[in-house]
Amino acid sequence: MLHVISKDSLPGDEPSHRGRAATDAASDVGGLPSREQLLGALAAIVGEREALPGDSPSARYALSDATAPRGIVGTADAVVAPASAGEVAAVMAWCYERGVALVARGGGTGLAGGAVPAGGVVVDLRRMDSLLAIEPELWRMHVQAGMTTANVQRLARESGLLFPPDPGAAESSTIGGNIATNAGGPHAFKYGVTGRWVTGIEAVVPPGRVVRLGGTLRKDAAGYDLAALLVGSEGTLGIVTAAWLRLVPAPEVTIPVVAGFPSARAGCAAVAAVMGSGIQAAALDYLDAGALSAAAAGFPGGLPDGTGFALVAEADGGVAEAEAVARELEEALGEHATFVRRMGDRTAVRKLWAWRDGVAIAVAARRGAKASEDVVVPVERLGEAVEQTVEIGRRHRLEACSWGHAGDGNLHATFLVDPHDPAELERAARAEQELFAMAVALGGSVSGEHGLGSLKSGTLARYWDAEALVLHDGLKRLFDPRGLMNPGKKLAVSAPAPPD
Amino acid sequence: MLHVISKDSLPGDEPSHRGRAATDAASDVGGLPSREQLLGALAAIVGEREALPGDSPSARYALSDATAPRGIVGTADAVVAPASAGEVAAVMAWCYERGVALVARGGGTGLAGGAVPAGGVVVDLRRMDSLLAIEPELWRMHVQAGMTTANVQRLARESGLLFPPDPGAAESSTIGGNIATNAGGPHAFKYGVTGRWVTGIEAVVPPGRVVRLGGTLRKDAAGYDLAALLVGSEGTLGIVTAAWLRLVPAPEVTIPVVAGFPSARAGCAAVAAVMGSGIQAAALDYLDAGALSAAAAGFPGGLPDGTGFALVAEADGGVAEAEAVARELEEALGEHATFVRRMGDRTAVRKLWAWRDGVAIAVAARRGAKASEDVVVPVERLGEAVEQTVEIGRRHRLEACSWGHAGDGNLHATFLVDPHDPAELERAARAEQELFAMAVALGGSVSGEHGLGSLKSGTLARYWDAEALVLHDGLKRLFDPRGLMNPGKKLAVSAPAPPD
Repeated sequence: MLHVISKDSLPGDEPSHRGRAATDAASDVGGLPSREQLLGALAAIVGEREALPGDSPSARYALSDATAPRGIVGTADAVVAPASAGEVAAVMAWCYERGVALVARGGGTGLAGGAVPAGGVVVDLRRMDSLLAIEPELWRMHVQAGMTTANVQRLARESGLLFPPDPGAAESSTIGGNIATNAGGPHAFKYGVTGRWVTGIEAVVPPGRVVRLGGTLRKDAAGYDLAALLVGSEGTLGIVTAAWLRLVPAPEVTIPVVAGFPSARAGCAAVAAVMGSGIQAAALDYLDAGALSAAAAGFPGGLPDGTGFALVAEADGGVAEAEAVARELEEALGEHATFVRRMGDRTAVRKLWAWRDGVAIAVAARRGAKASEDVVVPVERLGEAVEQTVEIGRRHRLEACSWGHAGDGNLHATFLVDPHDPAELERAARAEQELFAMAVALGGSVSGEHGLGSLKSGTLARYWDAEALVLHDGLKRLFDPRGLMNPGKKLAVSAPAPPD
Repeated sequence: MLHVISKDSLPGDEPSHRGRAATDAASDVGGLPSREQLLGALAAIVGEREALPGDSPSARYALSDATAPRGIVGTADAVVAPASAGEVAAVMAWCYERGVALVARGGGTGLAGGAVPAGGVVVDLRRMDSLLAIEPELWRMHVQAGMTTANVQRLARESGLLFPPDPGAAESSTIGGNIATNAGGPHAFKYGVTGRWVTGIEAVVPPGRVVRLGGTLRKDAAGYDLAALLVGSEGTLGIVTAAWLRLVPAPEVTIPVVAGFPSARAGCAAVAAVMGSGIQAAALDYLDAGALSAAAAGFPGGLPDGTGFALVAEADGGVAEAEAVARELEEALGEHATFVRRMGDRTAVRKLWAWRDGVAIAVAARRGAKASEDVVVPVERLGEAVEQTVEIGRRHRLEACSWGHAGDGNLHATFLVDPHDPAELERAARAEQELFAMAVALGGSVSGEHGLGSLKSGTLARYWDAEALVLHDGLKRLFDPRGLMNPGKKLAVSAPAPPD
């Protein structure tokens, strides 16, 4: 069944703000506040303009994320936009005491339903988008959680530095959201995912306290790495309000190299050749036949007939280094490719990555919507995963394709859907379950960079050790004893069905 | 007071194997086993030859770590050397049920007393030193925890790859110990600390179960990052038995550049110039005047008179890249230096780093022993920290010096001591407390890469948020509810004094 969260799943006229996953007798002490009490209290903290009823038209955006086109929409009692960590703490303190759930929200670009509320209060962090400090000569930046990824990247670039994580929706996604999902992107192949660039986090944790974990230090082996726990926790342990980021000198030059192959197998042999050639490419992305046919229009230099797979690699570094790596790339790719093209100038490079960022939209446009996942497998199993994705689609009578970060074994495995056809949406949801099983069978994981969200809730139980699941649940209870932080998300085991 | 752990601190004839920090009524159910029962049970698991009484001469090595020369020696009831994770689990299961403490041990090279037992069973992991898999073309290695760091590095190098973490005692330290302390080294400046190269951990967690956290995948955003929690946990949450490591293509060339300065201030200005020059050096280490005078003998190319501070930087990469970075380094360092020297050939490079690794020993040799810490400060405060270290020594009538990883703001701040002079040892312990306070006052941390161990137990309470301390303690209880994993170590707040 598709995990559509709708009003139907919540009891009729009762206040809905306690997350459905919360089952804590203590939360009923004094009863849940009425909607009027809730909105009044929130308005007193953040101001009237920044506290909206969850069913008002202007709050509608906060009920869904990038899974909205496939019909996944939640409900909320209120949407607030605090201006400071102190306001976030005050909102949490009021709600937590009264059993009201809290769902943190950044740019709403997530693809796992992680920000889709199931009642309670949505905390929109985008007003908190200030640059708190940038110290280019120390390779550091301190920003509020609501700053967009693109602005973080831009500020770094203007100082001759690089903030490497580059998720596809960087113009809209926020750094807080990137931290909450441990977002990646093409350049994670060389530079790693978001968490690797975070030296400290300011967060608000239950029952409503601001806590600082780490800071500007580049190394710290003193206490347990609590900041690393918040990275990728999808708002289920606390709400990230600010971050200290590590930067690195920007490479002088980037040289993308694009190559086409007759098949996924040939392309994956080229991936192996690149990894075996002793060079570190900055990025090593791929598109399979289906993704290529959707995004053919903008393919750099035009797409020759018979291209069944493409790789988009990049060399970076000083001029001589980038040149040397690009030559190695051309050689390694050339062994298996039908064509290899180097993007020479800055304009071509910019156009290439803009086109690459648009692949998801081009694919979705085919039938109106898509069910897109980001399973990850050991890199040597990529070819199988690409082929099996198409095969799973075929079994469910769905057009399927994938693209993603070949060097990291990370597939954006996608089923195209007509959003107005409930039967097709249903088939896609079943196909996704097979996709997760396939990734696990290949030694992989259900998420490389999007998180578990609500779509993949409970799937960890299929492949994590029992003892690890117990620790996962224990961590959740340690941070959030009442189960009010983004209920229903990031669950290691499926939540028990609510009582009738 | 110096944290000497000795038999005197344990009650006379009672079994000592319950860690002093453990206060759990449940552990007394059925009473602690006698020493005979303990040794019999351990021998049945690991074999008679691998289970030694803690007071036997051949078990003596397991009572101390690299803090032994300053008189820090613990006690143990038994020392076992298991051959597999299954044996570790069986040992833990037997001990945990009976309230017997467990202390994991690698190469015993730690400088924070983290492996010094306070009763209980020492689990020496060095027999578990197998290479489980190496896949050079996939940049991966899977090793047991007892493999030495040097062997990990060597196996990578023989495949044209690099395992970057390079702590000073790599020939003796084990990868499991490196993970347990999140060890660093000079090249952490470019490549990061040990944790960044670990994609998965196999560990035994209380009450005695083998758990796998992560594995070969290069990215995984599915569950909470439990592996990141074990990194740096110093055996207080579980015992690391194996690890999946990420490798990277080795740089073709490394070019060290050594520079001398009249003072720490001039040297730190050069550090700022290097960071501001837009290049990423592979390493940026320093030695202050005291460290230089101890290690003058082997200084590469000889040490000119009047050198009060030195930097050891390194350029790496492809031939052209390393050359370009080396030139930038020479230029940036040259602005402030009295001399700049480039190490040309491989022999010189090898000799340089061998000399650098020997600095700690040369310094210790001055008076027989040293009290050495690894405080870390924001890099722009390094100069102050270097000067204040000497000043703190002066106040306590101790020769003091420091060296370390300038680019990471990580000082090995050291007081020279005569190990036969109890008053001097006592003064050094007091000086260390001031050192920690100084690091915290400068916005730093009490450990960059050695961990809290027993020497720094409780210091987190001086600078962590109260809420973070609560979470730190909660994590410990979640993993180790009976407080039997390496008791007394990694405590966020000081343990209460034992009852009279």
